[in-house]
Amino acid sequence: MKKIIIAACMALAAMSASAQETVKLPEPQKKAEMSVMQALQQRHSVRDFQNKAVSEQTLSDLLWAACGVNRAEKARDGKSLITAPSAGNRQDCKVYVLKADGAWLYIPEAHSLQKITDKNLITMAGKQEFVKTVPVNLLLVSDQRNESRLNTNLANIDCGYVSENIYLACTALGLGTVAIGSLDKEPLIKELNLTDMQLILISHPIGYEKAK
Amino acid sequence: MKKIIIAACMALAAMSASAQETVKLPEPQKKAEMSVMQALQQRHSVRDFQNKAVSEQTLSDLLWAACGVNRAEKARDGKSLITAPSAGNRQDCKVYVLKADGAWLYIPEAHSLQKITDKNLITMAGKQEFVKTVPVNLLLVSDQRNESRLNTNLANIDCGYVSENIYLACTALGLGTVAIGSLDKEPLIKELNLTDMQLILISHPIGYEKAK
Repeated sequence: MKKIIIAACMALAAMSASAQETVKLPEPQKKAEMSVMQALQQRHSVRDFQNKAVSEQTLSDLLWAACGVNRAEKARDGKSLITAPSAGNRQDCKVYVLKADGAWLYIPEAHSLQKITDKNLITMAGKQEFVKTVPVNLLLVSDQRNESRLNTNLANIDCGYVSENIYLACTALGLGTVAIGSLDKEPLIKELNLTDMQLILISHPIGYEKAK
Repeated sequence: MKKIIIAACMALAAMSASAQETVKLPEPQKKAEMSVMQALQQRHSVRDFQNKAVSEQTLSDLLWAACGVNRAEKARDGKSLITAPSAGNRQDCKVYVLKADGAWLYIPEAHSLQKITDKNLITMAGKQEFVKTVPVNLLLVSDQRNESRLNTNLANIDCGYVSENIYLACTALGLGTVAIGSLDKEPLIKELNLTDMQLILISHPIGYEKAK
């Protein structure tokens, strides 16, 4: 009996460890009704946030909008096709989700989050005071480990695509954000275990805007 | 009487020349109802176009969406605020509108087109066969003449913002487009009279997608 209990405990512990590694996000609902034109009309930079959490469902919709899979068909190279365009279909712009419970990498194909570290890195990606007040900070990283050489021009334009999706989806979802380009990258490179072929570009603190 | 007719003719000629220089676009209607989420769901690259014109009204909405003025308030530096974010509010990404009747620069503040040349440069901004079939080709140029030195990283990210606005607005307006980065820039630099501080980045052939 003791052995069974120990085995059960070990199995549970293993499941728990595994669950901590990768978390499936709820399916994106895509129900926000705001039109593209309205979102463009309302888009602005937000630097003043309420003390209010972002739900898993809202985060799911936001990450899907940023660079989620938007078609069943595949590209010629076998890749899934996503909301954000990218030069040569490199899809190099990856989104790291910095939250109180750790830093996670968004995996578009599985619409899941893969844990990179248990540490809260929210304030590591932005020196401004308001970064301390947001529940989520998205870090955009151009991952070119599959390329023969770094292309910073393409990295930046592809980052712009994902960043604008984030701006407009935030607007449609009632959230606010601003892109921050001035980052102290070294600590992030270390914590996220990035290589020279993974370029940190901008962060996107996310939250609900304070009423003006 | 003769003098009056001559004076009238000269006045008309002057008006016509002036009208040729700058054309006020119709006010953007912003009535396209497609939601941000639907547009992200449907966004894809289009390279197969119908032989169909794009109306002035549709072009007006598209250009406004790309980088038009979206707020009455001004930035601290006195600039108008626009649909596309930009690093340090540089607003460096300019849109040149290449049509059969010439090449025009979009002026967000006046929501007007300023003629640069009478020449049709549509096919100069893209070598692919399908570029020959579109009624409009938008050329994105980072204009950094107000900066002390060129910043290509910011040029590219800001171009990505405007380009994604174009992709999503095209989707909402029933149009199709694809960004082309491989351009023969020298002839365009010459025709558009660009300086070393004006970087041609991508073009966006625009039209109605052929049914598949």
